[in-house]
Amino acid sequence: MESITSAMENHLNNLTKPRGSLGNLEDYCVKMAEIQKQVPPKIEKKGVYVFAGDHGIAAEGVSLYPQEVTRQMLLNILSGGAGINALAGGCGWEIITVDAGVLGDDFPPDNQIQIKPPCSFLRERIRASSRNSLREAAMSAAETGLALERGRMLAKDAAERGFDMTAVGDLGIGNTSTAAAMLVAAGFSAADVVDRGTGIDSAMLENKRRVVEEAARRANAPGGDGEAILRELGSPDFAMMAGFILGLEGKGIACVLDGFPVTSAAYMAYLINPGIRKWLFAGHLSKVAGHKPVLERMGLEPIVNLNMRLGEGTGAVIGGHIVELGVLAARSMASFADAHVSDSGGAEEKY
Amino acid sequence: MESITSAMENHLNNLTKPRGSLGNLEDYCVKMAEIQKQVPPKIEKKGVYVFAGDHGIAAEGVSLYPQEVTRQMLLNILSGGAGINALAGGCGWEIITVDAGVLGDDFPPDNQIQIKPPCSFLRERIRASSRNSLREAAMSAAETGLALERGRMLAKDAAERGFDMTAVGDLGIGNTSTAAAMLVAAGFSAADVVDRGTGIDSAMLENKRRVVEEAARRANAPGGDGEAILRELGSPDFAMMAGFILGLEGKGIACVLDGFPVTSAAYMAYLINPGIRKWLFAGHLSKVAGHKPVLERMGLEPIVNLNMRLGEGTGAVIGGHIVELGVLAARSMASFADAHVSDSGGAEEKY
Repeated sequence: MESITSAMENHLNNLTKPRGSLGNLEDYCVKMAEIQKQVPPKIEKKGVYVFAGDHGIAAEGVSLYPQEVTRQMLLNILSGGAGINALAGGCGWEIITVDAGVLGDDFPPDNQIQIKPPCSFLRERIRASSRNSLREAAMSAAETGLALERGRMLAKDAAERGFDMTAVGDLGIGNTSTAAAMLVAAGFSAADVVDRGTGIDSAMLENKRRVVEEAARRANAPGGDGEAILRELGSPDFAMMAGFILGLEGKGIACVLDGFPVTSAAYMAYLINPGIRKWLFAGHLSKVAGHKPVLERMGLEPIVNLNMRLGEGTGAVIGGHIVELGVLAARSMASFADAHVSDSGGAEEKY
Repeated sequence: MESITSAMENHLNNLTKPRGSLGNLEDYCVKMAEIQKQVPPKIEKKGVYVFAGDHGIAAEGVSLYPQEVTRQMLLNILSGGAGINALAGGCGWEIITVDAGVLGDDFPPDNQIQIKPPCSFLRERIRASSRNSLREAAMSAAETGLALERGRMLAKDAAERGFDMTAVGDLGIGNTSTAAAMLVAAGFSAADVVDRGTGIDSAMLENKRRVVEEAARRANAPGGDGEAILRELGSPDFAMMAGFILGLEGKGIACVLDGFPVTSAAYMAYLINPGIRKWLFAGHLSKVAGHKPVLERMGLEPIVNLNMRLGEGTGAVIGGHIVELGVLAARSMASFADAHVSDSGGAEEKY
């Protein structure tokens, strides 16, 4: 890896710009080169996987929105009307919407719902919603294993589709409660990771904090066991996201995280294999309170901070596009020699 | 303006997302609506104007690079090899390169230099480099007036080209010294605004601080007189940028600022007409030390912070693209009613 890193740095230093003047974009290029093991790296095809699932814990009054919104919003993404459609479209991402465990019956066949390209729909549901983790394990061991495995299969799918870069987004009423409960079980303090989610008031926030703490206490899972925490407190979509991220190992594909729920799922994957941080980018810092401490624990710096809290991968596609811009610069800029531009005479200082 | 603002906020609140969840992107939409006086606003065509000029003050040993680099880099942009070409290309911007006052002879005719679309070249030179502002006025009063006027003409050019959004970039060896000297004359402290530029060492930095302070002292211009400061300490490119920004008034066109030199030119325009902040966005926070205090003085919040310091408009095109993504979301997202998605029942809290 050492030689890829220096080769990339040398490549960047020969381009017609003051050394280091592309700032973080140069760091992103180096990381992409390390992921792809090539100098310069390339990003020609990007796909954002949006995992949808419902959360039994929503029965405890932790969200403003009724659970049917998960299904409605999945259909909204498929038909092109959601935030992720606008933002992914504006940055050149394909959208792969995954039903990991939405409440209710299976969705009607593709020809009976509206699906607008470049959106595709994968039916990978493990069960209709997780169970209420305040009362019982969110999933069985078999369901958890299956969700992780399906996630790994989707990482293969990403390779087959030829993506150089993926992003992970999440959709599901109750997902910030699930995320917080998992993190409390993993040793984070509830005060740091319980947030207003889609916009609850102070009384609901107090209730949410109590629900999250009691669920984590009930689960009594070992704080370092990502799979056990996913089983007790997670959900099909969270386990599938973790499996997806783990499954990208060795595939030369980068993965950009979205906000708090996605990053919490990534943290469970991190407990299983801390090596995942080598192919992860933190797309943005969301406005959800618990996001920052989890990113810090994994040593990931968010690319942008736009006070967003929409989910669906919306922050990830913006951050990932900025990585792509860096790669584009590394691939297309002229060198000092090519452009007959005088260098600074090899000044050693680098910013 | 009040009604446009509320109409835009109402429009955003009806879209299928938790209220306020697009964060800063929603604020950018509101500002674009106010600029264009329409709800929702639109961004269909974007142009980045890169103003190139040389700086007599470069003779004082304030930069690592020889002055001929300004000319070489202008040709590099025209032929597609510079950082701005990669980044503007990756975000859908046209590039308009302007010779405001590059050192040496006029550039050869278009058919004798390499110009790669979507790049165009405007020959608006006022003089071959500013004079050395440590010794004498950088420009005559007539030259300054002409540069401001040419800038205003370019704002008309932007309207004629149909741009909804413009960005301003700068190119010129010595430009951070010119910017710092102007700001010191306007009352900023040299300690806050003198920086290493393209990467000078500590001894050169000490010299640069001395040069900047002495030039400002020699100029003895009234701190609130933007035009006098431009004349004494500025340059054709800085005055033309200021004129361009001023000239956008009433045209319904947004303008995204790049880094330290551009923002310093904008500050001179701000002294002439503080109303300019209504159509300005701060594309990024650059790594150059003096950038932040000047943005703060104008009440502008940078969109991204990527530790860049390349200039040429590279930070502006990234920030402007993020504004565009917000506008795209406002234009293309479904409403709750359209998408048959249940609302939160009108929760009042907004994040």
